[in-house]
Amino acid sequence: MLNHIRIILCQPTHPGNIGATARAMKNMGLSRLTLVAPENYPHAEATSRASGADDILANAKVVNTFEEAISDCQWLLGTSARSREFPWPQLTPKEAADKAISLSASGQEVGFIFGQERAGLTNEQLQRCDFHLCIPTHPGYSSLNLAAAVQVITYEIYQSFLANNEMELPVTQFAEKATMEEVTGLLAHFETTAIQVGFMDPHHRKKLMPRLKRLFSKAQLEQDEINILRGFLKQVTRIQS
Amino acid sequence: MLNHIRIILCQPTHPGNIGATARAMKNMGLSRLTLVAPENYPHAEATSRASGADDILANAKVVNTFEEAISDCQWLLGTSARSREFPWPQLTPKEAADKAISLSASGQEVGFIFGQERAGLTNEQLQRCDFHLCIPTHPGYSSLNLAAAVQVITYEIYQSFLANNEMELPVTQFAEKATMEEVTGLLAHFETTAIQVGFMDPHHRKKLMPRLKRLFSKAQLEQDEINILRGFLKQVTRIQS
Repeated sequence: MLNHIRIILCQPTHPGNIGATARAMKNMGLSRLTLVAPENYPHAEATSRASGADDILANAKVVNTFEEAISDCQWLLGTSARSREFPWPQLTPKEAADKAISLSASGQEVGFIFGQERAGLTNEQLQRCDFHLCIPTHPGYSSLNLAAAVQVITYEIYQSFLANNEMELPVTQFAEKATMEEVTGLLAHFETTAIQVGFMDPHHRKKLMPRLKRLFSKAQLEQDEINILRGFLKQVTRIQS
Repeated sequence: MLNHIRIILCQPTHPGNIGATARAMKNMGLSRLTLVAPENYPHAEATSRASGADDILANAKVVNTFEEAISDCQWLLGTSARSREFPWPQLTPKEAADKAISLSASGQEVGFIFGQERAGLTNEQLQRCDFHLCIPTHPGYSSLNLAAAVQVITYEIYQSFLANNEMELPVTQFAEKATMEEVTGLLAHFETTAIQVGFMDPHHRKKLMPRLKRLFSKAQLEQDEINILRGFLKQVTRIQS
């Protein structure tokens, strides 16, 4: 139930946070860590803060881009501060954990993404998420340390795992959700078609594409829905040429 | 409701953990920290890990003995590993947090005590507690970092505070969701276009349309998303004719 869940740190700056993340994960039964372009890694402080969880570090996947990190995820949950300009399904840590456990139990690949210490996730990264989650903090001082945020989320994941394991809830059957890579493929296909039919000005694509990205993310597309939409787009361009 | 709750660290060894404890507390609306005979304190690492929570450090009460630290507490909750030889009322973090909030709300002084990094609380300290609480962790690796344990407990305290206070979390503002009629209009528009470009056989539309209906319903379309999609479809047919 836990092995389809991974933790993805995007461009972490402090190696200590990487080590503490590994330790938090191992405490809570998680093992799959992905690091996107870490600034100082490997590093003695990461190893030291990992304490007994150095196996998590040793097996961590280190990649250069966010796209690589999420390409085979089917569901993305992003941690965010509360006040973002665009609305998104917003979950509490417990709701997010329950969702992740039920998805993972049915074999779906789930990624929790955490942004850089100072900046958090970018709007573009947040737009790739199926859900946003927010750890409620005191309004006077809301900047959680990165590893502390990971600790809270992994704690909730493990509590949800224990609760589900005790009650043996019937596993929800989910259709095969598209991977992020498949959604990216659809977006690119739509973009080309929209330009070809004269719906989108190639010089102003930056206005429309984020909106479509968000729309397709909200739709939580399944693999055969991607096939239907791409089939339609293919037919549109076939007629054109 | 939060100001009768204090966090007591007993003989902490690593100054980094003291700083991270202060930060975790401030994030979760707590301000009263007591340090019993800290090994390295004050210390630059404590200040650095406290980040913006240095006021908590500055106001921390530093005492020499455990007795001094707990003397004016009315209730003591001690964190412990699960398997202690003597039986005691054992709470989950959430149960402990709920209890602390309800006690604090009625003006009772509550102390959460945390033991030394390596050794934890002594049996003698645990015997002074009204309740023991245990953070459930994976059996394979159960040694939580001290500051991480404080983070989990303070997180639960603040969640319980929010729930009890019925402090309404700011409601996410959603854009204007499309009416059912607008979604139906989009579906019809898609159907016409799909037939026109030869993507859908008009005699077999019953296979595809329910799938699209479900897809668009999942997407929880907003009004301007409908406009974007219909604009695209319009352009496709304009080119055609």
